[in-house]
Amino acid sequence: MMKILNQTLFTIAPASVPWRTRATERLDQLTMPHWALGRLMDLAVDLAGITRSLQPPIQRKVVVVMAADHGVVAEGVSKYPQDVTWQMVANFVNRGASINALAGQAGADVRVVDMGIAQGMKDLAHSGAIISLPVARGTANIAKGPAMTRAQAITSLESGIQVARRMIETEGYELIGVGEMGIGNTTPSAALIATLCGESALSSTGHGTGIDDEQRRHKVAIIEAALRINQPNPEDGIDVLAKLGGFEIGGIAGVILGAAARQKPVLIDGLISTAGALIAQRLMPTATDYMIAAHRSVEKGHLIALRHLEKEPLLDLQLRLGEGTGAALAMNLVEAAARLLSEVKTFSEAAVSNQNAVHPR
Amino acid sequence: MMKILNQTLFTIAPASVPWRTRATERLDQLTMPHWALGRLMDLAVDLAGITRSLQPPIQRKVVVVMAADHGVVAEGVSKYPQDVTWQMVANFVNRGASINALAGQAGADVRVVDMGIAQGMKDLAHSGAIISLPVARGTANIAKGPAMTRAQAITSLESGIQVARRMIETEGYELIGVGEMGIGNTTPSAALIATLCGESALSSTGHGTGIDDEQRRHKVAIIEAALRINQPNPEDGIDVLAKLGGFEIGGIAGVILGAAARQKPVLIDGLISTAGALIAQRLMPTATDYMIAAHRSVEKGHLIALRHLEKEPLLDLQLRLGEGTGAALAMNLVEAAARLLSEVKTFSEAAVSNQNAVHPR
Repeated sequence: MMKILNQTLFTIAPASVPWRTRATERLDQLTMPHWALGRLMDLAVDLAGITRSLQPPIQRKVVVVMAADHGVVAEGVSKYPQDVTWQMVANFVNRGASINALAGQAGADVRVVDMGIAQGMKDLAHSGAIISLPVARGTANIAKGPAMTRAQAITSLESGIQVARRMIETEGYELIGVGEMGIGNTTPSAALIATLCGESALSSTGHGTGIDDEQRRHKVAIIEAALRINQPNPEDGIDVLAKLGGFEIGGIAGVILGAAARQKPVLIDGLISTAGALIAQRLMPTATDYMIAAHRSVEKGHLIALRHLEKEPLLDLQLRLGEGTGAALAMNLVEAAARLLSEVKTFSEAAVSNQNAVHPR
Repeated sequence: MMKILNQTLFTIAPASVPWRTRATERLDQLTMPHWALGRLMDLAVDLAGITRSLQPPIQRKVVVVMAADHGVVAEGVSKYPQDVTWQMVANFVNRGASINALAGQAGADVRVVDMGIAQGMKDLAHSGAIISLPVARGTANIAKGPAMTRAQAITSLESGIQVARRMIETEGYELIGVGEMGIGNTTPSAALIATLCGESALSSTGHGTGIDDEQRRHKVAIIEAALRINQPNPEDGIDVLAKLGGFEIGGIAGVILGAAARQKPVLIDGLISTAGALIAQRLMPTATDYMIAAHRSVEKGHLIALRHLEKEPLLDLQLRLGEGTGAALAMNLVEAAARLLSEVKTFSEAAVSNQNAVHPR
């Protein structure tokens, strides 16, 4: 128990400063006014530091969609019934969901992981259509007690680490996006963000799938109850995950840690994925070096979480879907940034006059 | 003279409201909370209205890079010598520039058009590496008099229309991005934006390729002189183009009008492309229905111009390069939006419970 987690945490090294410097030096010489591609160039530097390369490999891409259910739906925090979790997993497998369309556009595969769906997904698991690593058939209701045991929290993290290992080492993926499906999961995510960022439930809680203001007040009250009853210790990431979390949120944190340990970039999607990223950060702060914030969601707690990660999102398209859709959309930008390093010529390589050349005035 | 231009202007119809409605109705039923992909869904509606289709064709993409020189460089408005225009055109042809890398990532071709480069580009024109439609070997110095004659302004617009016709009808492109190269061209663009948006030279003028504050004050003074000496009539788009413009800016306006007449979407890039878009708007206001604003540049006048077009940019990545780089980056988002319409299933198609289903509370 915890051996995989501890080994992974100890393996995570900061991004490489020398490779960042090398990338900056090359980008400074490209045929354009200084740093004229702005944040795309910042991203290229990040990729060089993450991958230790001036030609960051970003060809093989995957969106890992972690799915699980949440006992707190008994409190009426979502507009949708719990069955939508497994129905949407079936939709992912049948390639009919938004993440299928957007990952397809980005040239990325989609892998769905059952981290704890209430409805057993035996047929899909047996056929290999999904990766089956359920910790349990949904968490307990956080309004009444902890979501899971500490052992289950560690299992969810280690399952995520195993998924990252499989994606990177066995299947050869070079860029991972993390997404999720789980009716009710903006509630534990907001609770996690409030705890880990030292914010109130009120400031971290949004309208989720589209609840109205009165329903949101109810949701805030449920989160306040969960925080009061469970008393999570914000210094202990595993305790916070166990008391408030979801299995898919632990799985996402694990994927991030596993990717960071293998020096691969991970695109963080919306509110729930970012809650997972906060858990990963709490367990190993340097893991943030490997995270790329895909987008800014309209969900209220998301900006709080991104600031806590010190991440500037690449996109701001008023998304609030999850599934990894924002991560898929940002994959093209990550690949574009890598191509700046590997494909664009310098002033001297292209025989273009730099600004120091004499010119009329 | 003006026959092609007038025919084109009269052909431009507004985007289709019925197709926009049909798209909205379908998007409302997709397996997600209502409009949970935000601006990507707005864009999908725009594409349906532009292309009159629920499966907007966006496969074949091209970035048209219009290049020309500017007499106003004699006033020392740029950090770079005029030779950089033709040197960068050679770099585009040799696939060593940023636009090559970013268009390549987006699966788009790059076509370079000589609209009036000072240095003759005979070899590249003869080999077919560039499209050669020079109006003259650079504009006159707008600080001393008009950039070009009214006849030349019309020729630049009609050349752009011809390029759009060739791209769409002969070569089968379905999505066009407009970009440019021309040392000094932020100066005429800022002058155009000030005139067409009713703003001062000071508020429309930025730091271009990276000039310092003192150089910028000089640039503002040059633009003020150009406005004073030329007295462009803001109600007459051709007059504004002739007195302040560049040949590539007229070409860009022409491409936009030609694409709008053929009901194809056009991605507008940064400051200079948007100045061209303002000319197109002035000549035919409904042409804006076919424009998609790719990104918000750091150049000061860009936001003013985008507001005048009533366009919200898709990206905000602190770009200030031009070449069509922002348009190339946004092409993936346009394709992603189209795929929402054509690939994502509705609740009933996917057998997923909608929010009206009974669920515990």
